[in-house]
Amino acid sequence: MSIDRTLTTDREEAVTEEVLASFDATPDPRLREIMHSLVEHLHAFARDVRLSEREWEVAIGFLTRAGHITDQRRQEFILLSDVLGLSMLTIAINEPREPGATESTVFGPFFVDTAPEVPLGGDIARGAAGIPCYVSGQVRSVTGVPIEGARIEVWEADEDGFYDVQYPDGRSAGRGWLRSGHDGEYRFRSILPAPYPIPHDGPVGDLLAATARGPMRPAHLHFMVTAPGYRTLITHIFVAGDPYLDSDAVFGVKQNLVVDVVSHDAVDPTPDGTRSERGWTSIDFDLVLAAHDGS
Amino acid sequence: MSIDRTLTTDREEAVTEEVLASFDATPDPRLREIMHSLVEHLHAFARDVRLSEREWEVAIGFLTRAGHITDQRRQEFILLSDVLGLSMLTIAINEPREPGATESTVFGPFFVDTAPEVPLGGDIARGAAGIPCYVSGQVRSVTGVPIEGARIEVWEADEDGFYDVQYPDGRSAGRGWLRSGHDGEYRFRSILPAPYPIPHDGPVGDLLAATARGPMRPAHLHFMVTAPGYRTLITHIFVAGDPYLDSDAVFGVKQNLVVDVVSHDAVDPTPDGTRSERGWTSIDFDLVLAAHDGS
Ligand SMILES: [Fe+2]
Ligand SMILES: [Fe+2]
Repeated sequence: MSIDRTLTTDREEAVTEEVLASFDATPDPRLREIMHSLVEHLHAFARDVRLSEREWEVAIGFLTRAGHITDQRRQEFILLSDVLGLSMLTIAINEPREPGATESTVFGPFFVDTAPEVPLGGDIARGAAGIPCYVSGQVRSVTGVPIEGARIEVWEADEDGFYDVQYPDGRSAGRGWLRSGHDGEYRFRSILPAPYPIPHDGPVGDLLAATARGPMRPAHLHFMVTAPGYRTLITHIFVAGDPYLDSDAVFGVKQNLVVDVVSHDAVDPTPDGTRSERGWTSIDFDLVLAAHDGS
Repeated sequence: MSIDRTLTTDREEAVTEEVLASFDATPDPRLREIMHSLVEHLHAFARDVRLSEREWEVAIGFLTRAGHITDQRRQEFILLSDVLGLSMLTIAINEPREPGATESTVFGPFFVDTAPEVPLGGDIARGAAGIPCYVSGQVRSVTGVPIEGARIEVWEADEDGFYDVQYPDGRSAGRGWLRSGHDGEYRFRSILPAPYPIPHDGPVGDLLAATARGPMRPAHLHFMVTAPGYRTLITHIFVAGDPYLDSDAVFGVKQNLVVDVVSHDAVDPTPDGTRSERGWTSIDFDLVLAAHDGS
């Protein structure tokens, strides 16, 4: 039996060595490094679990289904990367080293690069259903320098958990961008976001179900902040108390991105003088940018 | 700098631990084992190469293209598994331990389960272009017991390097199945196969080009042999002297699957009495089946 095991191990190692060598002539040294490492880890995985031929077929079928459900509005491979934590790990690997900067989290599939500009203090909800939420804070550097004119993109789901692009009627709502003011200050009107499930009617949803994991993401507001000389910040604000903070399907929650939402009665005057019978809410959150490091 | 590095490492490890824990409640223990190992190795890969966000995007785009080119006639994910050596590694992992059995190699994408039966000694070329090749041998167990009635499926490319299914005219040629005779003997007429490139007009082809690898496979004849009580054998016969034996794009070559082809003059009588102005060839190859081990 020990001889057979050795034979098997020799055979397996011979395959891995042959495959590694096949990438030796890759002209781009970075691509060569990536392919070598990918082969090492992929083969180690198959060996560690003693992958069966039937399991290999299931994996091929999974990727095939993921490819076929992916289109302009649906990106199953990003979802797969998200639920395997690869997206958040990649973010962690590339997180700026500067302490004090606002942390990053996943970009997600719902950004639209044609959202309208709104003035400082304007409305990015633009008709999205939900309790009004006034968000304000300062854009600044880690050394406390206010950053004027930063471009702040915001996007969010409505109170039913849907982004505008998920409705078939072509609406644009719950998104917009504005520039920070002279002292780096920013403020806008939005709505209080709701938790929502990631699309789970495809192979990634089947994987979540088979592994007893849920598809929900805790409520959040997306930000992308750009300013010359600073690293682009892609992040969320999460709502304290959300029931899914500990089980985000895509592992996006970081403790210092969880903020307290202040509730206000309907009779309290809102920052922009509009009224809401359901009352309104407010969030204060500073956006601290890391210096650009050339990467 | 050392503090920042530690911060980064802590962040990364926290992500991996959170993702691993998310799979802890998977009901099926085998799926749990596979997901844990997949996450460990996938994350180790991303960390080892310090995967950039741009590289992550390239990977997502690659998988998306692979998904969109895959259809009923084209399977880019199998090609990807093949060129990364994962297919051959999976075969090595599942290879029977019994010494003496004919070794396995890749199944490939060109098998058709509706090929016609031909009699012992019949013609599986069925009009495929090429120099006639008469193949014969014995199907037997590793202990030398002849196996009567084994089902032998054979399929091959023509002398231009194409399988019948790659032609748009719906032809069926270069494939068929037969049963071994009383003493396990088998023989059929085919054609001498030609080397051919795997489909390389998609993302896998781009990967091969970027890594200075070729798409060619050495000439081969596919076999799938089934018999009650024995493990199904999926293998090839390779032609000795083929220029691509050392650089098979899918790593399928094993030395004891490489056979000498005997050349015969046009005037020599063929085994079945048909004539070929271009001369003819013959191959002798025994098919040795491992006992079924229940897997
Ligand atoms: Fe989101
Ligand atoms: Fe083939």
